[in-house]
Amino acid sequence: MARITKRSEDYSRWYTDVIMQAQLADYAPVKGCMVIRPNGYAIWEKIQRVLDGMFKATGHENAYFPLFIPESFMKKEAEHVEGFAPECAVVTHGGGKKLEEPLYVRPTSETIIWAMYKDWIQSYRDLPLLINQWANVVRWEMRTRLFLRTTEFLWQEGHTAPEAEAEEEARKILEIYRTFAEEYMAMPVIPGYKTEKEKFAGAVRTYTIEAMMQDRRALQAGTSHNLGQNFAKAFDVTYQDENGEQQYVWATSWGVSTRLIGALIMTHSDDQGLVLPPKLAPLQVVVVPIWRGDEEMERLKQAARELTKGWDEAVTFKIDDRENYRPGWKFNEWETRGVPIRVELGPRDLENNQAVLVRRDTGEKITVSQEGILEEIKKLLDDIQRSLFERARKYRDDHTFVVDDYEEFKKKIEEPGGFFKIHWCGSRECEDRLQEETKATIRCIPFDQEPEEGKCLLCGKPSHGRVVAAKAY
Amino acid sequence: MARITKRSEDYSRWYTDVIMQAQLADYAPVKGCMVIRPNGYAIWEKIQRVLDGMFKATGHENAYFPLFIPESFMKKEAEHVEGFAPECAVVTHGGGKKLEEPLYVRPTSETIIWAMYKDWIQSYRDLPLLINQWANVVRWEMRTRLFLRTTEFLWQEGHTAPEAEAEEEARKILEIYRTFAEEYMAMPVIPGYKTEKEKFAGAVRTYTIEAMMQDRRALQAGTSHNLGQNFAKAFDVTYQDENGEQQYVWATSWGVSTRLIGALIMTHSDDQGLVLPPKLAPLQVVVVPIWRGDEEMERLKQAARELTKGWDEAVTFKIDDRENYRPGWKFNEWETRGVPIRVELGPRDLENNQAVLVRRDTGEKITVSQEGILEEIKKLLDDIQRSLFERARKYRDDHTFVVDDYEEFKKKIEEPGGFFKIHWCGSRECEDRLQEETKATIRCIPFDQEPEEGKCLLCGKPSHGRVVAAKAY
Repeated sequence: MARITKRSEDYSRWYTDVIMQAQLADYAPVKGCMVIRPNGYAIWEKIQRVLDGMFKATGHENAYFPLFIPESFMKKEAEHVEGFAPECAVVTHGGGKKLEEPLYVRPTSETIIWAMYKDWIQSYRDLPLLINQWANVVRWEMRTRLFLRTTEFLWQEGHTAPEAEAEEEARKILEIYRTFAEEYMAMPVIPGYKTEKEKFAGAVRTYTIEAMMQDRRALQAGTSHNLGQNFAKAFDVTYQDENGEQQYVWATSWGVSTRLIGALIMTHSDDQGLVLPPKLAPLQVVVVPIWRGDEEMERLKQAARELTKGWDEAVTFKIDDRENYRPGWKFNEWETRGVPIRVELGPRDLENNQAVLVRRDTGEKITVSQEGILEEIKKLLDDIQRSLFERARKYRDDHTFVVDDYEEFKKKIEEPGGFFKIHWCGSRECEDRLQEETKATIRCIPFDQEPEEGKCLLCGKPSHGRVVAAKAY
Repeated sequence: MARITKRSEDYSRWYTDVIMQAQLADYAPVKGCMVIRPNGYAIWEKIQRVLDGMFKATGHENAYFPLFIPESFMKKEAEHVEGFAPECAVVTHGGGKKLEEPLYVRPTSETIIWAMYKDWIQSYRDLPLLINQWANVVRWEMRTRLFLRTTEFLWQEGHTAPEAEAEEEARKILEIYRTFAEEYMAMPVIPGYKTEKEKFAGAVRTYTIEAMMQDRRALQAGTSHNLGQNFAKAFDVTYQDENGEQQYVWATSWGVSTRLIGALIMTHSDDQGLVLPPKLAPLQVVVVPIWRGDEEMERLKQAARELTKGWDEAVTFKIDDRENYRPGWKFNEWETRGVPIRVELGPRDLENNQAVLVRRDTGEKITVSQEGILEEIKKLLDDIQRSLFERARKYRDDHTFVVDDYEEFKKKIEEPGGFFKIHWCGSRECEDRLQEETKATIRCIPFDQEPEEGKCLLCGKPSHGRVVAAKAY
């Protein structure tokens, strides 16, 4: 098995090595595209199941809209087309003929969906319309990276027409994303809103959750947009309210993508390979019976089967009793693949009616009695989930700095890097300058921003609270 | 609410009316494309969940491959490109520039997947490789119909490299499709294999399940292909066997699509609208409390809530206690949407400690005691599932004819139409002539074909068993 580059040697190669060794994905022979292999797709299925449940529990339904968007639709919302058209793939031929109107492969579906909503929404009785779709989208990317930025990616995109203003819905979804990131991905995030410069093309306001990766860069893990009445106006979608008046419909859109798998990897994995939080690990426990000779083999295989009786409903597990691989090789393989707990079962363990649990996150070995082992495993899974979150939070907090001096900022953003709480006057000029001079961007204006008088890091003009700046993916 | 055209008046309009009234789908403003609305997508989710479980139980894993296929890949398997290239959508521009090589939007993914398998398969230890993907595909269609034939559709496509010859795997999957069609969709099918003319472009053999719709046309509901070594040779995919010899890899591919929703509609629905088999109905039971006046309303709403306590784990249900609609309007709406059982609960029912169950499939009303009502409902759902299947089987059998005279065939294929068991010599000439002269095609050579000496319906040459011919979707 090939070696994984150390994070300290080359972070970017480490990331790719972790993915390739765990067989999560592979480069496709199509520019900028990836193949999500079964080990990676199984994580996406876990993510989908949890999020889909959360969306449905809040009244959202799934639907499916076309992959292709006529060019004329793209052009109806001015900011939107300006933001997306340059990165679109365009179909010009179909069925052997040149098309009369080119079709854009959806980079996001606001325009095609709002064209349909025009037919579906007439009266206040048709509201709220709360729809989500799981789909593939395409954005032509120059510099791609597995999971984090690929020309085609998988995502969910919610497009809703709430009963009244969209603010509550947009915030509700962001809270779902925050909960999912922290409680399932074990990834601490800063929820907040984007600056005018960084918001979604066509939105009134964009909410975001921002996470810190192990190279101290920020990763935008999910966004939720209050679109105001911009798309309703562009597509002329009105409804008759309870007083008989025609009103434009309010809108939100929101999405998370397979990028979350990249975030998971970069938050928890180590120099041995993938580390997964138990709640999203497709395989939570692997049991490796250890034997010498054929007689022991049969006995140990049998013991592993007996030990795991009744586990099915509590954990997902697998017995690795392959005969053509040695225990050490197996240990290494399952570590590389991020299985949270390994159970070792050898002849001496049998004699002592015990087994050894090995934590993937810390490497700690715990000898436990075979009686009550399932309870121990469940507790340990909970503990791993919790401690991964705590470890990531500590890492983030240790690399979050309050800075008021631009020279200090410029130095620290390079080394060690991290999140910087800075004062900013609110002007586009200072925001642009920050990015040009330091490659850092304002990631968000956090919800928990405290009122604090200060001076803009760049121009010295007054500021009333700190924003979060960082280099980002 | 608009009226549904009767089947006897205009079958094709009836079909569209059923879909529009049940809000399963809508026409998209993109040529040949459809929007799958929440009511329709919920059926697809049920289909996905069941089939996905069956695939996984037989060792298959999900993955995801790119939407785009380079033109050069399409051209590697000669029959395949000839079959698919004319109906492809082609991306010629990306990121504002003309591409060096055009990209085909996948019409099916054999070529891109086998290009990857070349890297993934080296040795017999890498086999079997059993992968499925849930994805959208595009085939440029001239004449489209909601669900049955659309330019873009959703499907699953399995692509496997079995350990040895692919025949067993291809047949195993067809059996999964047959089981799903009959036990979940309550749709009887004829399993068999396709003629050389009708098989998949690039396959050695294509297996199929064929169902009869209510207009007596055949619908191909799922296919499974033994691809032999054709794609392995085209993409040069070999493995070292246990004796150290290089061998070409064997292959299968197989798929079912959102077309199944069209099949479901055309098999069971009636002039009142959608009829769904309970196992695939997103909503199985709707409870409608009936009241006059505010005091009764509160009492009945409360009674409905009490009646349904504990139902959650056994059935999916909803209480329709909307105040701005009358009971008759609600009955009609839920019938149109195909909910298998309606429970009516009025003041007199309360007095008598009873409720009325109404079957969607037959309209039959059954008064039951409130004690044990959930057991009654579960039994009734089973009974509806079974009797929908029996009704469909009887319909098919009543419209299946053994015919040996070509003039009789030509008459009956027009009226009443149906499945025709005919002798055929096996030649392409007679198969082509049959289609030209009658628009019927040979749907399949059924597995249960009995040896029987006869003469070809067209040329009179010897035949050794009957095939199934029909007009088809």
